[in-house]
Amino acid sequence: MKKLILSLLAIPLVFSALAQSPAPPQSKIVTDSIHSKVLNAYRAYNIFLPKSYETDTNKKYPILYLLHGMTDTHQGWAGRGHVKDVADQLMESGEACEMIIVTPNAGGNIYEGVWNGYFDMPGWSYETFFYTEFLPYIEKNYRVIGDKAHRAIAGLSMGGGGATGYGQKHSDMYAAVYAMSALMSIPEMGAAPAQKPDDKMAILTKSVIENSCVDFVANADEDRIANLRTVAWFVDCGDDDFLLDRNIEFTQAMRKKKIPCQFRVRDGGHTWEYWHSALYTCLPFVTRNFGKNQ
Amino acid sequence: MKKLILSLLAIPLVFSALAQSPAPPQSKIVTDSIHSKVLNAYRAYNIFLPKSYETDTNKKYPILYLLHGMTDTHQGWAGRGHVKDVADQLMESGEACEMIIVTPNAGGNIYEGVWNGYFDMPGWSYETFFYTEFLPYIEKNYRVIGDKAHRAIAGLSMGGGGATGYGQKHSDMYAAVYAMSALMSIPEMGAAPAQKPDDKMAILTKSVIENSCVDFVANADEDRIANLRTVAWFVDCGDDDFLLDRNIEFTQAMRKKKIPCQFRVRDGGHTWEYWHSALYTCLPFVTRNFGKNQ
Amino acid sequence: MKKLILSLLAIPLVFSALAQSPAPPQSKIVTDSIHSKVLNAYRAYNIFLPKSYETDTNKKYPILYLLHGMTDTHQGWAGRGHVKDVADQLMESGEACEMIIVTPNAGGNIYEGVWNGYFDMPGWSYETFFYTEFLPYIEKNYRVIGDKAHRAIAGLSMGGGGATGYGQKHSDMYAAVYAMSALMSIPEMGAAPAQKPDDKMAILTKSVIENSCVDFVANADEDRIANLRTVAWFVDCGDDDFLLDRNIEFTQAMRKKKIPCQFRVRDGGHTWEYWHSALYTCLPFVTRNFGKNQ
Amino acid sequence: MKKLILSLLAIPLVFSALAQSPAPPQSKIVTDSIHSKVLNAYRAYNIFLPKSYETDTNKKYPILYLLHGMTDTHQGWAGRGHVKDVADQLMESGEACEMIIVTPNAGGNIYEGVWNGYFDMPGWSYETFFYTEFLPYIEKNYRVIGDKAHRAIAGLSMGGGGATGYGQKHSDMYAAVYAMSALMSIPEMGAAPAQKPDDKMAILTKSVIENSCVDFVANADEDRIANLRTVAWFVDCGDDDFLLDRNIEFTQAMRKKKIPCQFRVRDGGHTWEYWHSALYTCLPFVTRNFGKNQ
Repeated sequence: MKKLILSLLAIPLVFSALAQSPAPPQSKIVTDSIHSKVLNAYRAYNIFLPKSYETDTNKKYPILYLLHGMTDTHQGWAGRGHVKDVADQLMESGEACEMIIVTPNAGGNIYEGVWNGYFDMPGWSYETFFYTEFLPYIEKNYRVIGDKAHRAIAGLSMGGGGATGYGQKHSDMYAAVYAMSALMSIPEMGAAPAQKPDDKMAILTKSVIENSCVDFVANADEDRIANLRTVAWFVDCGDDDFLLDRNIEFTQAMRKKKIPCQFRVRDGGHTWEYWHSALYTCLPFVTRNFGKNQ
Repeated sequence: MKKLILSLLAIPLVFSALAQSPAPPQSKIVTDSIHSKVLNAYRAYNIFLPKSYETDTNKKYPILYLLHGMTDTHQGWAGRGHVKDVADQLMESGEACEMIIVTPNAGGNIYEGVWNGYFDMPGWSYETFFYTEFLPYIEKNYRVIGDKAHRAIAGLSMGGGGATGYGQKHSDMYAAVYAMSALMSIPEMGAAPAQKPDDKMAILTKSVIENSCVDFVANADEDRIANLRTVAWFVDCGDDDFLLDRNIEFTQAMRKKKIPCQFRVRDGGHTWEYWHSALYTCLPFVTRNFGKNQ
Repeated sequence: MKKLILSLLAIPLVFSALAQSPAPPQSKIVTDSIHSKVLNAYRAYNIFLPKSYETDTNKKYPILYLLHGMTDTHQGWAGRGHVKDVADQLMESGEACEMIIVTPNAGGNIYEGVWNGYFDMPGWSYETFFYTEFLPYIEKNYRVIGDKAHRAIAGLSMGGGGATGYGQKHSDMYAAVYAMSALMSIPEMGAAPAQKPDDKMAILTKSVIENSCVDFVANADEDRIANLRTVAWFVDCGDDDFLLDRNIEFTQAMRKKKIPCQFRVRDGGHTWEYWHSALYTCLPFVTRNFGKNQ
Repeated sequence: MKKLILSLLAIPLVFSALAQSPAPPQSKIVTDSIHSKVLNAYRAYNIFLPKSYETDTNKKYPILYLLHGMTDTHQGWAGRGHVKDVADQLMESGEACEMIIVTPNAGGNIYEGVWNGYFDMPGWSYETFFYTEFLPYIEKNYRVIGDKAHRAIAGLSMGGGGATGYGQKHSDMYAAVYAMSALMSIPEMGAAPAQKPDDKMAILTKSVIENSCVDFVANADEDRIANLRTVAWFVDCGDDDFLLDRNIEFTQAMRKKKIPCQFRVRDGGHTWEYWHSALYTCLPFVTRNFGKNQ
């Protein structure tokens, strides 16, 4: 039965067939940070660099800004969202093209007093930081193509609202927007004043209302409508999501203005299972819109 | 603008709509362990208990044994496999029925000398442990229906081979088997003897060869074939998986013996993305076979 | 090269491997008709009988009423919907159980004066025909189990509204309802009177408004809500469908009353591609609800 | 109740919302034919022209040759395959780009003596016809881009073998090949001579064996391998298909030569349900490979 007893040399052939020599290039996620004068703080980010990034040193790449949700950070998409694993698979099969994917940190535990939010608000000029510091830094320090046709933005929940709002106000900068379970707006309920003047949750909420993605479309004039039509839009929200009606209102407003917008309601709630699976639609969607909308 | 400033009381209505009062019953995963005389050690396990388990205290449930792969432990399916999240979603939509899902620990870091494997081998009588200690303990201490018609087994890689081998040798105990990227066998290569007599990897490899799932079918007589037909079989393996040919050989052997066996080759390799997504097929598959094969 | 030239005897082995001898039982679709006193006419129907129907002559089956859309007839689901092909595949894989599927004729070319519609209206008491003649006839003349737990109803467009309305008014009769691109209601627009007193389109439209599926839920009291909760509901409508807002209103009304209802918005319009693909969700959905709601 | 009675004018708003005025451009399928000197006969074909074809009169398009199976004709993909409906939906959502899709007639009822087959054989020089007459005619008479980077080929069963064989022998002409349930080869069984010298089935079978797609890869030298790597390959075959093992052999041969090739085994047999659903993978696959392989 000697032939049945495999040597340690033979075993890797069986169990580790993927670990070929020499090590082929791998994609990777790097965590880094930049110092922001606007926010007067270091801000971390996670960046996905595709497989060829280190070997093909002259190549420039399309970029996807992938925003996280409330109370989460730049680590969410890499950790629970498994964005590297999904990207690796879709880039291997060709369903997604090689691209850079970056998640900035716009949050943390808001209940413990950490700022959250993608818009400018008193004490937290995140949108100003994003456009005057973060995006320019990323597109200068990584090999990003850097035009509208090769830039997309996506996000979940608060980050879905952020992605949509950024795409609306900067339609000249993005080829595509993919919103997951997005905080498109907050219904105005008879609200009491915030209990403390520096209540970060109240400030965040106010910023979301002021930047309502629904109102932005509903109030659009012909010029704005024409601009919005230069972006490819995708709205994806679960049938059990408490934000579904906000997403419905957004897509109805888009339809009324005849701005093309893909809309999907899949099974699920406001969960990572939903957002993780949305990547399988999101990455191919932005891929096929890269290079199209000049 | 007072109405725009939401109070802390109002915010949970918006952001935490799912956290209703009083807290509805939730599914949960419990980590526990039993002492094994066979293995002379404590062996840990993870068990998923469905939503109604604590409130519906007379109800008994079908059970799925969900096996992990080599170098992994009972934590893999809960951690990277997100089995609770998938089960919650599928049970909510009705695509999976409420069931108990249990992952025993049959591994750890084999390169650091930890035993791995589901079969009996010199020094590691895991199969004996499983059938004389583990399964009886679980089905006595949790509200498990406990017949063939309501018991299924699944697993990935080494655990896919384990699930298939267990289903083959105990076809009177399982209604369904779902094998993911399964180590169905190891091709016999001209092999040198193991370098140390207690080389656990060599011992494991030998046990897999001796328990070849392919040979078990290929060598089946009419009685065994009849038994195998009382189980519902599903084989799921990625097109980039280094074990694909082993799975092809298994399904070809099954077809030759006219034993019905679902077979899928989806996009992907030997990765958690593949196994996680396989749960979306696996749980409905075992669900619809529960109660059928008596 | 003799061995390369296959004989006519050998070829069927290659090209017709599925045509085994003796011919295995096949499912089939039968077109037949009954005479209706209510409508004073013969009414045709198409009925799908599963594979075992002719050989397993004591077996009784669950039943699915599958309704067609406006201007279409009982032939639509068999012809363009390919319901037999889909059912064969899903029953083979086990995703759908064996069931009888019947499509009555409630239409034809309305523009040429043919009656259309599932509700009672002046001159066309179709709902009366359905419940006093058609359903009793089918369930007596075919081996139908015939209780609520094993009866489901589905349909597309006008038939989706019919299926939903029937399920609402007869919640004691159906375990599940699956609505595709359903005409859930018609928005009340400032409408002029019909141009002729016997305008069948105007009469149909009026009947749809009077049987609004949205209003039925919105106006439901606690008793009715309790009844509606005994049915499993599924609403499936394309993002480009002109009836999407009606389906949104329906699911919002259901949610407000806390009546569980699956909701999906997939890519597509008011097309046969959508309805055909919906069968792949519909048949498993009704399958897993058969036997549940007593 | 006047407001409930809709006028004939109002109804189209509800039921025919998609029929906007003036009629927007539509895609279409045209059936036409060319006279072949090689075959000494008229040969029909079906051609799908995308929505913009008639309005955007200077635009040139990528092309997909979509081959039918044995005993079928150029009508199969349009009739039962619903290629126009699938293409319309995928082009609307952006998952497929606008392209021309053409199905030549290489068949008919072989049992009644009609020639079938894509390769040259005694009495039926179809491959010569295809490359010297058909393809040049199509690419001259329709606005086809006409280079390798914008030409793809796909097919089902006999046409899947045809597409693969054409892609192999003319790897300089195709960017992508998508094979469905393909007749990749025929196993050599101990065969008797054909019963008549002009037995068209025997002649066809012989041509398939001589053009074995499996052997073509297995016997490939380095030059041929390099050429095959310039094509994107996709093999898609059902788990119940009697040709599955042929497709497995093909993908194994490709893997052995390290030629990238997507492989999928989905649920199903040798059926139109399978091929129709394959279009939803095929059209996006060829779309994303257009423009890539120069």
